[in-house]
Amino acid sequence: MPIYARPSIHAIAGYTPGEQPVGLSKLVKLNTNENPYPPSPAVQRALAEFDWQAMRLYPEPTARPVRETAAEVFGIPASRILCGNGSDDLLTIALRTFVDAGQPFAFTAPSYSLYPVLADLQGAVQRPIELDPDFGLPADLLEQAGDARLLMLARPNAPTGTTFPKEAIRDLCGRFQGVVWIDEAYADFADDDCLDLVAEFPNVVVSRTLSKSYALAGLRLGLAFAQEPLIDEMLKLKDSYNVDRLTQAVAVAALADQPYLRELVRRIRATRAATAQALRDLGCAVLPSQTNFLFVHPAHRPAAELFQALRREGLIVRYFDLPRVRDYIRITIGTDAQMQEFLDAFQRLDQ
Amino acid sequence: MPIYARPSIHAIAGYTPGEQPVGLSKLVKLNTNENPYPPSPAVQRALAEFDWQAMRLYPEPTARPVRETAAEVFGIPASRILCGNGSDDLLTIALRTFVDAGQPFAFTAPSYSLYPVLADLQGAVQRPIELDPDFGLPADLLEQAGDARLLMLARPNAPTGTTFPKEAIRDLCGRFQGVVWIDEAYADFADDDCLDLVAEFPNVVVSRTLSKSYALAGLRLGLAFAQEPLIDEMLKLKDSYNVDRLTQAVAVAALADQPYLRELVRRIRATRAATAQALRDLGCAVLPSQTNFLFVHPAHRPAAELFQALRREGLIVRYFDLPRVRDYIRITIGTDAQMQEFLDAFQRLDQ
Repeated sequence: MPIYARPSIHAIAGYTPGEQPVGLSKLVKLNTNENPYPPSPAVQRALAEFDWQAMRLYPEPTARPVRETAAEVFGIPASRILCGNGSDDLLTIALRTFVDAGQPFAFTAPSYSLYPVLADLQGAVQRPIELDPDFGLPADLLEQAGDARLLMLARPNAPTGTTFPKEAIRDLCGRFQGVVWIDEAYADFADDDCLDLVAEFPNVVVSRTLSKSYALAGLRLGLAFAQEPLIDEMLKLKDSYNVDRLTQAVAVAALADQPYLRELVRRIRATRAATAQALRDLGCAVLPSQTNFLFVHPAHRPAAELFQALRREGLIVRYFDLPRVRDYIRITIGTDAQMQEFLDAFQRLDQ
Repeated sequence: MPIYARPSIHAIAGYTPGEQPVGLSKLVKLNTNENPYPPSPAVQRALAEFDWQAMRLYPEPTARPVRETAAEVFGIPASRILCGNGSDDLLTIALRTFVDAGQPFAFTAPSYSLYPVLADLQGAVQRPIELDPDFGLPADLLEQAGDARLLMLARPNAPTGTTFPKEAIRDLCGRFQGVVWIDEAYADFADDDCLDLVAEFPNVVVSRTLSKSYALAGLRLGLAFAQEPLIDEMLKLKDSYNVDRLTQAVAVAALADQPYLRELVRRIRATRAATAQALRDLGCAVLPSQTNFLFVHPAHRPAAELFQALRREGLIVRYFDLPRVRDYIRITIGTDAQMQEFLDAFQRLDQ
């Protein structure tokens, strides 16, 4: 039968999200960086108070209630905030706003494995910039990025969990001639962030998500921060009503409960520190993490083998069979009890 | 300051959705084809029973529960169904799957004003096919569509409310060499639909939405039906988690309550018939509607003027200042009481 898709689409496999296994109750799911704790109780109240009959009406197109709440929380005007159906929606909007088909799109590697897929979907030319051996920024990053219209990097980075010096990012923003997109999906778990660079530079976008630190991966709400000229262009690309009424109500409630967020982050950081130390005590190499996961080089068995062995015991972590990262497993930080269960199995299996 | 957006994006205005006025209580909102009745009470139950703590986890990527429910309702296998964040999400996926930048994208006109915008956003070449003077399909439609990779049409059509003979559509599907996308956003209000063409032709996609007939414009759930090879290509373009957990739960409940849907449709069709007759009695030309709105050529005053006059009295309808349709106003079918209020004002103002 004939091929109806664009040849470049037909040729690719698309992005593979982390597994969402069914029958979750028996498994310890540490593979997609979800939060092990429930979202804020304010979310439950927002749902209970939600006017379900109002769903007959379209939502506010720009999710204004969410933008206004985020403006207060982050101290950035609502006019500099764009809401997405998850931050993946925003990353897609980025490619479509800034990169014509055939133009180069630069991104650091290894990083979020969606970036090269987004390039393919847009017909952009992939320009991956390899990180240093220790997963730091290469000295010639700017030269490698060259004339790319868009440079995307995750800070802190995934799947490594590491971060980059903020001064290096600021320097990059000032010298790169295209748009610098700083994907801060994990920034709430880090010691610092780059949100203030938005006021400083007209070519910078910082994105956030409620999926990780707010424990709302199932909701789909992402935020992009940038100066108005960039926001106004990106608005043209978003679907008219990309954030639904329920999502707006829940996101407002979650964003407004900052004390709950801080408590979740405090707990996860504490568990992260304890788990990293325990793995180091077992002889593993553990990259310094600024996220809610650890990137771990096992002490004895090959990572791929250990990944399968853990899986057989119902412990689901993430493994990437890709250059430079295939000697590591990525472990989402769960509750203390989950991490103890994981460590017990890991100690037994990594022999 | 420098322009960071793609030149083709910077040059356009983007799509303008129908107004969502604030302070709605004083207004009769008949401008965006929302349902005047609330969604099924099953939606309220689904929300009450929803496990809010599970929102910490990502949703099922393909919205499988929705696809399985839709499969039962429509008698089409779940493997032939794609869920979108509203049908706008699906229309965007269509352009990105089937039309390369620089390639022609054919669509009938006048129709949904998003179609030409989607062409611009994708860098496709607009190939509008003008409908006949009575808004029927032109005899040379196939010749005009030519080598376009994708032909999109709405059946029933918006903003005219009219439909096209199904045999002409079937003939088109069999003879066109690209993909025929039949946008059935309003099909529940019509006498027939084209869903059965999906089984018949490998190049046909039919899309539906819960926004109109299911009274869930605020939810964002669209469905596309096509044979598996087309679905599989489109899956590559959708965001990994484009339909959130709440939306999946609500959509399942709404789709499963077909008796409620039939009752809503019955009421709106009855109100539509009565309103159309009343407007004809006032001397207006009213196009035969198969949708939940009427497209009306006023008897006395210019449409643009009447639109403003109605607006001043708190009656919001839709007016398109575009060729061929600027002599009409589009009136969403509300409740009987709302239509009486509208007709009273209309009679007074159309002098």
